[in-house]
Amino acid sequence: MPAHDDATATDESTATATEDGQRDDFTVTPYEVSGTLDYEKLLEEFGADRLTAEDVRRFPDHPMLRRGIYYAGRGVDAYLDAAASDDGAGGTHSIVTGVGPSGPMHLGHALVFYLAKTLQDATGATVYVPLSDDEKYLSKDLTFDEVGEATRENLRDLLAVGFDPERTRFVLDSADADVVYPLAATFAKDVTMNQLEATYGRPDNVGMGFYPAVQTTHLLLPQLVEGAHPTLVPVAVDQDPHVRVSRDVAAKARYPVEKPGALLGKFLPDLAGPGKMSSSEGEAIYLTDDADAVEEKVLQRAYSGGRDSVSEHREHGGDPSVDVAFQYLRYFFERDDDALAALAERYRAGDLLSGELKLEAVDAITEFLDAHQRRRDALGDVREELEPYRLTDAERERALSAAGVPQL
Amino acid sequence: MPAHDDATATDESTATATEDGQRDDFTVTPYEVSGTLDYEKLLEEFGADRLTAEDVRRFPDHPMLRRGIYYAGRGVDAYLDAAASDDGAGGTHSIVTGVGPSGPMHLGHALVFYLAKTLQDATGATVYVPLSDDEKYLSKDLTFDEVGEATRENLRDLLAVGFDPERTRFVLDSADADVVYPLAATFAKDVTMNQLEATYGRPDNVGMGFYPAVQTTHLLLPQLVEGAHPTLVPVAVDQDPHVRVSRDVAAKARYPVEKPGALLGKFLPDLAGPGKMSSSEGEAIYLTDDADAVEEKVLQRAYSGGRDSVSEHREHGGDPSVDVAFQYLRYFFERDDDALAALAERYRAGDLLSGELKLEAVDAITEFLDAHQRRRDALGDVREELEPYRLTDAERERALSAAGVPQL
Repeated sequence: MPAHDDATATDESTATATEDGQRDDFTVTPYEVSGTLDYEKLLEEFGADRLTAEDVRRFPDHPMLRRGIYYAGRGVDAYLDAAASDDGAGGTHSIVTGVGPSGPMHLGHALVFYLAKTLQDATGATVYVPLSDDEKYLSKDLTFDEVGEATRENLRDLLAVGFDPERTRFVLDSADADVVYPLAATFAKDVTMNQLEATYGRPDNVGMGFYPAVQTTHLLLPQLVEGAHPTLVPVAVDQDPHVRVSRDVAAKARYPVEKPGALLGKFLPDLAGPGKMSSSEGEAIYLTDDADAVEEKVLQRAYSGGRDSVSEHREHGGDPSVDVAFQYLRYFFERDDDALAALAERYRAGDLLSGELKLEAVDAITEFLDAHQRRRDALGDVREELEPYRLTDAERERALSAAGVPQL
Repeated sequence: MPAHDDATATDESTATATEDGQRDDFTVTPYEVSGTLDYEKLLEEFGADRLTAEDVRRFPDHPMLRRGIYYAGRGVDAYLDAAASDDGAGGTHSIVTGVGPSGPMHLGHALVFYLAKTLQDATGATVYVPLSDDEKYLSKDLTFDEVGEATRENLRDLLAVGFDPERTRFVLDSADADVVYPLAATFAKDVTMNQLEATYGRPDNVGMGFYPAVQTTHLLLPQLVEGAHPTLVPVAVDQDPHVRVSRDVAAKARYPVEKPGALLGKFLPDLAGPGKMSSSEGEAIYLTDDADAVEEKVLQRAYSGGRDSVSEHREHGGDPSVDVAFQYLRYFFERDDDALAALAERYRAGDLLSGELKLEAVDAITEFLDAHQRRRDALGDVREELEPYRLTDAERERALSAAGVPQL
């Protein structure tokens, strides 16, 4: 049986381990236990679809899919149909996943890019990576120059992922404004102020008011460049409203695009425990952290599902569902389902101590970061390295023309 | 005495001629008589300054200045100081005057460009001409392609004015988005939604919500390219709030710019009589109209200040202050003040009939349009003709850098 056939099994077995009485059958996840986010309620509210076992089977194998980290979506079927190139029935299909450069990238930012690379390697997906430097400048207390510094650093990390330059485009809102702004202005006509405020609340400034049109541009750009085709946008589930704005715009008959699909996921936990991992709140492991930093962060700061004393732990066992070290292994770093299940089992049984589980996570994360950092360090000048990943002149013209933007 | 020394005299003598009892001493203008716009009240409301006779004297001579068509402003002194290059005390000074391309340009659009050329010829003013194709697409029921067609046509007219390409830049929001958008995003951080709605009302869409930041970019661009210097923005007085948004942004210490100044003017009357001349309301004379069209429009449709019958007119005389043909001559087309005064006098005396006055206007307008159209017809491909008027790469980099926009 291929590993991804037991997609929900690992998720459920983790859920079953919760002991605080707040679980609600199969809908319990390590996250919901903490009470910070109700992933199922969000789905109901947004009207998105839970991924079926069949959906998961059709995706290329990846721990974040087979373990239900990405657990819901919109329009996933169309993407999977186009991606089914192994039987010759496939076609163009693309992933859009971006980053708002406001500081160094942490694991919570980074894992989705490795997922995208897996999908690209397996089915030839086109990957578009928008970098919304405008949005970060407009929404944070940062100068544009500080955002620019973060952008260059983030670009090094994105380049280190190793995407295929033939099938990957990095799009910078400011540096690619020649194509981003006219497209955003085009779509902005279809986004009313009421829609803006209902989706995002009242923005702080007119730049943030315009940003939904820029974001819509990001999500429709692959289709404007390559012609209508299924696009999938992997995002944390709370970002789904943003995808819906672009779907509303895409539904207008005058644009030659399909509605972008969404692949909705759960947050990688903060070291301090459940909640969104963000560099501006809580503790995070950065892509630039060395082995010592990772060890210090995980051993000293990662929330543990273990007991207060070794003897208590040996007797009653720990709870992997709330243990951050275990969750990191489960989300991404322990690729082997059997090994992961064995760790959970030994932890629950009290055979594996919290510190020992943490060292497993430290080793796996360090191994990942070592490889990432080696690729990052091998890069030359960012501007030169970026060149093959930028939109070509012909692609810019095609995109503008497809959206009906006149050119001189 | 130079012609521009009697700047207000012509205005006042016209005002004095009004006979409908609504005039209010020297504040009466041909426009206010109609009751459509109270230019003085607008000044009070906006807190702008009426031009003094000394201001007018310091400007290069132009009928629209010496006759009080442009009658008020902000920051005019600083501009005039910089423009005073005849005594060697001058420096860089610029004019920004744009067009929103939604259709063919009419005289109400065009005259300000000829004023700008006069200022450029006389004192070497830099002239920036933004073309807000984005705004017209976003605010009107037009496709971007239709706006693009209007843009190309408007560009032919702008090129026909004969600006000095060394000192003139045409900036197209979509085609120059590489520089316009990052700058607009920069300034957008300083424009709140409250300020937006207080100034412009609630916009129809998020694109129009962002447009004030684009407009601010237009007005600050000369200084970002060339360093801080006095800028003057000639606009109809009701557009003053738009200038004020850019002045508020320019007041932020972090931008190396001075507040742009305003030169506030009155509307060229619609053929049907007082009110804003606009291609979307009322009748206008287009830059593409031939002699027959001008004659037909002026003779058949221009509102007359004459009497109902020839005998009545001979007895009581006409009223040049509400006569559209006379006002066209006064605004721009009769450059000779003595000749204009003689026409007014003969009209008031009943010696000049309405049809005769109209033919004077037809001749003057046709002569102007003939020359304009000859220059227009002599142009080659718009894209090639435009090239020397576009921002250079070095100018783009300087502007982005001055505003703190990072570049790769």
